[in-house]
Amino acid sequence: MDTYKIIEVKESVFADNDREAARLRQELKQSGTFLLNLMSSPGSGKTTTLLRTIETLKDKLRMGVMEADIDSDVDARRIAEAGVKSIQLHTGGMCHLDAGMTEQGLREIGTDGLDLVVLENVGNLVCPAEFDTGAVKNAMILSVPEGHDKPLKYPLIFTVCDALLINKTDVLPYFDFDMDKVVEYAHRRNPKLEIFPVSAKTGEGMDAWCDWLRRQVKDWQS
Amino acid sequence: MDTYKIIEVKESVFADNDREAARLRQELKQSGTFLLNLMSSPGSGKTTTLLRTIETLKDKLRMGVMEADIDSDVDARRIAEAGVKSIQLHTGGMCHLDAGMTEQGLREIGTDGLDLVVLENVGNLVCPAEFDTGAVKNAMILSVPEGHDKPLKYPLIFTVCDALLINKTDVLPYFDFDMDKVVEYAHRRNPKLEIFPVSAKTGEGMDAWCDWLRRQVKDWQS
Repeated sequence: MDTYKIIEVKESVFADNDREAARLRQELKQSGTFLLNLMSSPGSGKTTTLLRTIETLKDKLRMGVMEADIDSDVDARRIAEAGVKSIQLHTGGMCHLDAGMTEQGLREIGTDGLDLVVLENVGNLVCPAEFDTGAVKNAMILSVPEGHDKPLKYPLIFTVCDALLINKTDVLPYFDFDMDKVVEYAHRRNPKLEIFPVSAKTGEGMDAWCDWLRRQVKDWQS
Repeated sequence: MDTYKIIEVKESVFADNDREAARLRQELKQSGTFLLNLMSSPGSGKTTTLLRTIETLKDKLRMGVMEADIDSDVDARRIAEAGVKSIQLHTGGMCHLDAGMTEQGLREIGTDGLDLVVLENVGNLVCPAEFDTGAVKNAMILSVPEGHDKPLKYPLIFTVCDALLINKTDVLPYFDFDMDKVVEYAHRRNPKLEIFPVSAKTGEGMDAWCDWLRRQVKDWQS
């Protein structure tokens, strides 16, 4: 499949987002579908990382991707070209997705027969962290050019994530980025955070990340 | 002065933010103070750009800086060390500043005798663009590693800004960043946008930006 739909998702009508998210997670458990919520700043390389992840996992897992964006469909087009089921969610200006919006996307993409659906959230380190989307696990990308002080400045997102990918390690020589410090700061926010230094561009480190993700899906389905 | 205060700003009680912003701008006009609202993604180099701007302009203009952050005071400390009046605004989790929050900061820093106050907004390309802070002009930074497609994905912020700094030009050789395309996309959103390619790290291009800013302050005060 190399086409994709554009869905205009509406802000949820549910007063209790946490309850909706829990209900959605239960449905996903029943259908054996693992939902990953992927968050980051604009331009940290979410789509490129996702393309590498698809390349590694698409023969092992049946995958779908929901690309959330305020506008445009540049990302969904790239994902569809990679040969996985994909839809574009337009948030109409909203800075995050909640469980209701995620559910509208899931109904559209159809979870039947999918092992793994990745939700690429809106590029933003603040608001997406505040809303449980119903995902089984949350992951975030921090890229080397953004700097190692981000866990100090955007604490919540590091707290709610299960995995942190540190992307663009290929450009480490050109930036003052201290890998030891970022790990220390991130673990100060969340001692259980799994950290994967990667370069989605060169592929370096992607295997460890994909192994972790595959293990999470397996655990969810067992 | 090389100390700074930390202010916990509260979400505004005003129903009509636009009206509050207009009132604040009128007060700034009377006191002859130019307020610049500086926005960007996390990690695009707002603070480093500001430090270079201070270095260039501090003998010509009496400057103050308000650093907005969800948490931490890493930026305010760096600015205070540069020798300008500076305060840290903690937004308590809020993803943007509105006019009421900006006013709380201005009361604290005191505009008397200041030609230019820069508000470093929360690192976020979405929400800050939706709220008029009362600033005379809005500027944003997009850094080379974030990619040239950002005006397609985050349209509003490019529309509301008067100036766009394209930062980290020193790392252009290491990224697939098309300067012609970003200019084309940005001008599609906003034909009047003034664009300044800069490297806050090396200082390249900073003079053109500082000249523009100084001219805006002069116009405002005349």
